[in-house]
Amino acid sequence: METFSCPLPIMKHDSVQLAHGAGGKLSAELIEKIFLPCFGNTTLNKLEDQAVLSFPGNKLAFTTDSYVVSPIFFPGGNIGELAINGTVNDICMSGAKPLYLSVAFIIEEGLSMEVLHNIALSMKKSAEEAGVLIVTGDTKVVNKGSGDKVFINTSGIGVVPEGLNISASNLQEGDILIVSGTVADHGMAVLTSREGLSFQTTVESDTAPLNSLVEDILNVTHEVHAMRDPTRGGVATTVNEFAKSSGLGIELFKDNIPVKDDVRGACEILGIDPLYVANEGKLIVVVPEYKAQEVLKAMKNNKYGKHAAIIGRVVNDHLGMVTINTGLGANRILDMPVGEQLPRIC
Amino acid sequence: METFSCPLPIMKHDSVQLAHGAGGKLSAELIEKIFLPCFGNTTLNKLEDQAVLSFPGNKLAFTTDSYVVSPIFFPGGNIGELAINGTVNDICMSGAKPLYLSVAFIIEEGLSMEVLHNIALSMKKSAEEAGVLIVTGDTKVVNKGSGDKVFINTSGIGVVPEGLNISASNLQEGDILIVSGTVADHGMAVLTSREGLSFQTTVESDTAPLNSLVEDILNVTHEVHAMRDPTRGGVATTVNEFAKSSGLGIELFKDNIPVKDDVRGACEILGIDPLYVANEGKLIVVVPEYKAQEVLKAMKNNKYGKHAAIIGRVVNDHLGMVTINTGLGANRILDMPVGEQLPRIC
Repeated sequence: METFSCPLPIMKHDSVQLAHGAGGKLSAELIEKIFLPCFGNTTLNKLEDQAVLSFPGNKLAFTTDSYVVSPIFFPGGNIGELAINGTVNDICMSGAKPLYLSVAFIIEEGLSMEVLHNIALSMKKSAEEAGVLIVTGDTKVVNKGSGDKVFINTSGIGVVPEGLNISASNLQEGDILIVSGTVADHGMAVLTSREGLSFQTTVESDTAPLNSLVEDILNVTHEVHAMRDPTRGGVATTVNEFAKSSGLGIELFKDNIPVKDDVRGACEILGIDPLYVANEGKLIVVVPEYKAQEVLKAMKNNKYGKHAAIIGRVVNDHLGMVTINTGLGANRILDMPVGEQLPRIC
Repeated sequence: METFSCPLPIMKHDSVQLAHGAGGKLSAELIEKIFLPCFGNTTLNKLEDQAVLSFPGNKLAFTTDSYVVSPIFFPGGNIGELAINGTVNDICMSGAKPLYLSVAFIIEEGLSMEVLHNIALSMKKSAEEAGVLIVTGDTKVVNKGSGDKVFINTSGIGVVPEGLNISASNLQEGDILIVSGTVADHGMAVLTSREGLSFQTTVESDTAPLNSLVEDILNVTHEVHAMRDPTRGGVATTVNEFAKSSGLGIELFKDNIPVKDDVRGACEILGIDPLYVANEGKLIVVVPEYKAQEVLKAMKNNKYGKHAAIIGRVVNDHLGMVTINTGLGANRILDMPVGEQLPRIC
């Protein structure tokens, strides 16, 4: 019966493309046309990176992410620490304190036990740094050729402090956007470590747990309107999600956005805009203008916020869209990416 | 530094085998030698299928499972409803009421959108039947040949009622084991639907959400000592886990264990013991003898417990091991499976 009442929606593609997993427009189409009509409810429909759930006496944040990064070891990290840090970060972007993680491995038959052990050791170290416990898990093994070394899903639970209301939809006119440091490090580290690409300097992933940074921000003010980690699709995608969810416009200040020299160089050679490249240890926080300097200062005092910078503001103009100055006094629209610049980046 | 203090443990294999994912002895070795030394804590070390976590005012059950079944559609179900029902069941085996699920897809590039839509529709239907909400999700797409159509991880949260203490370690001498219905249906459905195997009758998977059945049991008594769903590794693995965790012995009554005729026939032709075959809509509950008949009656009144039967008892003998009568008045040891009888069964 359900099949009759739910015909396949009209979509741009009749099969899944790599771009459907890239966090851009095609990802959004998949979610809006297939997943939300099937699974939608008031919590899921918010399309935050974590669900905030009310229990008697508690508000919990609950999130899930699968990690399929290739290669599984890259400069600055590996799939294991990425899986811990990424889920810790998704939890704490709601303002929650991350407490418990699940870990589920899908291993391709033949993976070296030593590699698996090294990944597990990295996960142990990352979990300890973030102060989270791994409390439940699962392991599946698939035949050679039916997977790719190892995929890891981590889901997690945190407790949301009272008095917070952090959501992409909460932006207010005049709010300031602060990024916690240099952008595009992770994506360029993975890309340049792939076969056939080498540069004189080694670009390193920024993978890191951001819960201590979030605590430092919340110690300054609970007036955090929105906060997200710009992973897949990069800064451009996150700020577009902010604009779309809030119905306001965002102006980015291009010259203020920190990019490491070697990362900028690699991006230029490859013709990639660093604003579309994934980060794994950065956040963008949106606060009222009168709190911005104080928040910025607190962030700079945290080891994961040393290069924090004000990168934009919320305007009551070009609603739902993001502009960025071109350096010639003009502004251009910074759009969502359609699909994949860099597949399997996380 | 960690690498020096944590050398690779000595293991039977130096790479991951399919059997490491099969729920048998090699799975246990992987968990004990790699994962517990890295991730261990008092909650994880219990090795239950879900973590029970204390929050102010609440005890929560938290679980995760990845589903890699092949084929993704099989008689009686598909990977989507399996992913919902399996995680619902893992939550409610702690006595918890399942409330919220996460869903994370790893899709192989090229999967037909219609197939994905049909899977999502099945998941919607299963979630509705179980009364759970899907509140957060993730989608990754991997290159053709780096996955196999679709893998699904579901994690879930439930609330544990007060006054319950259900754990594999809680068995008491004299306790009775009750299975909720016929065994081996799911595993044989998947196996016989794989290429090259066909039988006159179609064996169907038993995939089902068991939370209403658990509620009916708990309405009879809160003196449930242990409860698990015998999935990978089947009844034999679950009862061995009970014996090992509790340090007591278990006697199974072979003739009481319900097996459908067509399933038994398929098992005999293929030389497979149905006690080692996965179930996806069955549970084994362990209760004190004086409550057994009342619990059995309540189970038989639930649509998922119609064929429930008493299948064994807990003894203070052959500690940590399971015996089963041979039909000749003698008992033999029913061991854990070493590895995989049926790969990618869930």
